[in-house]
Amino acid sequence: MELQMNGTALKAFMAEHFPQVADDFRVLAVRPGEITLEMAVGESHLRPGGTISGPAMFALADVAVYLALLAVIGPKALAVTTNSSMDFLRKPAAGRPLRAEARILKLGRVLAVGDVLIFSEGCAEPVARASLTYSIPPERK
Amino acid sequence: MELQMNGTALKAFMAEHFPQVADDFRVLAVRPGEITLEMAVGESHLRPGGTISGPAMFALADVAVYLALLAVIGPKALAVTTNSSMDFLRKPAAGRPLRAEARILKLGRVLAVGDVLIFSEGCAEPVARASLTYSIPPERK
Amino acid sequence: MELQMNGTALKAFMAEHFPQVADDFRVLAVRPGEITLEMAVGESHLRPGGTISGPAMFALADVAVYLALLAVIGPKALAVTTNSSMDFLRKPAAGRPLRAEARILKLGRVLAVGDVLIFSEGCAEPVARASLTYSIPPERK
Amino acid sequence: MELQMNGTALKAFMAEHFPQVADDFRVLAVRPGEITLEMAVGESHLRPGGTISGPAMFALADVAVYLALLAVIGPKALAVTTNSSMDFLRKPAAGRPLRAEARILKLGRVLAVGDVLIFSEGCAEPVARASLTYSIPPERK
Repeated sequence: MELQMNGTALKAFMAEHFPQVADDFRVLAVRPGEITLEMAVGESHLRPGGTISGPAMFALADVAVYLALLAVIGPKALAVTTNSSMDFLRKPAAGRPLRAEARILKLGRVLAVGDVLIFSEGCAEPVARASLTYSIPPERK
Repeated sequence: MELQMNGTALKAFMAEHFPQVADDFRVLAVRPGEITLEMAVGESHLRPGGTISGPAMFALADVAVYLALLAVIGPKALAVTTNSSMDFLRKPAAGRPLRAEARILKLGRVLAVGDVLIFSEGCAEPVARASLTYSIPPERK
Repeated sequence: MELQMNGTALKAFMAEHFPQVADDFRVLAVRPGEITLEMAVGESHLRPGGTISGPAMFALADVAVYLALLAVIGPKALAVTTNSSMDFLRKPAAGRPLRAEARILKLGRVLAVGDVLIFSEGCAEPVARASLTYSIPPERK
Repeated sequence: MELQMNGTALKAFMAEHFPQVADDFRVLAVRPGEITLEMAVGESHLRPGGTISGPAMFALADVAVYLALLAVIGPKALAVTTNSSMDFLRKPAAGRPLRAEARILKLGRVLAVGDVLIFSEGCAEPVARASLTYSIPPERK
């Protein structure tokens, strides 16, 4: 796997294709097959008991593996998630950003699989784990 | 399983505990261990290619099984999702509401498990499938 | 979906391709996109506390959805499982056969997805739930 | 997490509680929250096309996380798997042993979660990934 897009290119891709949510995310590091992504946590992500909503953490996991994938296959907005599994392990701190550490486990011709750990700032143990599968659209010729 | 909360009670619960998203959802039917829930699809749920985002469909699946569970255990806002798996099967129609049909498969003392099919209005086949596990908080005495 | 293989054809396929385990399984009913499959439970499937092992129940889930798929796509031994998720809901009775009720939720060109409930004889509620994805090999031309 | 059982203790536990399969497994390394486990691959694990069956890989994943858990909580045969998700990434080599590298991500009072990568001897990339949840039985008093 070689890097086709760096952090700046990923940021520009997000701003163009996912303008509603692009500002929530910040690429902290990207290497071939690996990414570290931060998500700012706003009011809309919170839930009863001061915790962060499941869908907000799902969104972070999904975007993290998606960007780790795009970084090595190039900008293909139409790659789609076909499967996910996620474990919610601990309650994240409500006022702190979340950090995702994702890696690509398989990069096939039509399917890619990655997994991700999510951390809450200030806590050494992960707050969630997820694995995701993406279907890669065939090249248009 | 007996019904502790009907559609009106579930709606009031959502409005109180999840004010950011309560208006997106409408309980179409609720029976012991089963619920049919509709989600309006807005601009913020859309993605490149005119499809509905994975996190939006995850949110619907999560809320549907959660409400099916609360309907039989009563209003416990602190029940939390511990695990989910989800398959994204087909591209939903962008401008149409989604409908979730959820059922409770196990209602234990500390864990409950349910699954759900999601349909896009006008399409007979499901656009997504999910299963979710919830941890039920112990009764305060 | 139309039926390409009936119960007799599925049994012959199992005997040819999976001789080690074919005798454990019995097709009780097959319709387009649906199958009911019984698994005899032997000593090798048991675990401490008199329960049935997770791998034995996984095998039943996997075979059930696989046969439901083959029944509509024809005998393709090289279809492979790419993803599974499974919830173990209740302790099955040790000395009783298990029954799987599987259905195909998506039959695409390269991927098929199905889910399955597993029942223990004499108990109305499911003992396990699983969903599985299969990669369908391209036609040789 | 502290180590309550070393490799020798885990081997003795397997021989006592899982005599049917204990000889298939060999603990290569165990540390608090981590284990490396090898599984010999026999005729009964093979499938059409010379690959290793899904249930055999599931069994390895399940045993690996289970032993990683027992190593830190002590010998509790009645801990049971409640959920699993697994991705089958590549075809393992038929005649080679499999190696599982498992880690505990959460060790709670009633639930533990771990994940695992499975490698086929001679291949640097994983052939499968799994995550598993176990319910820990309460202490008898």
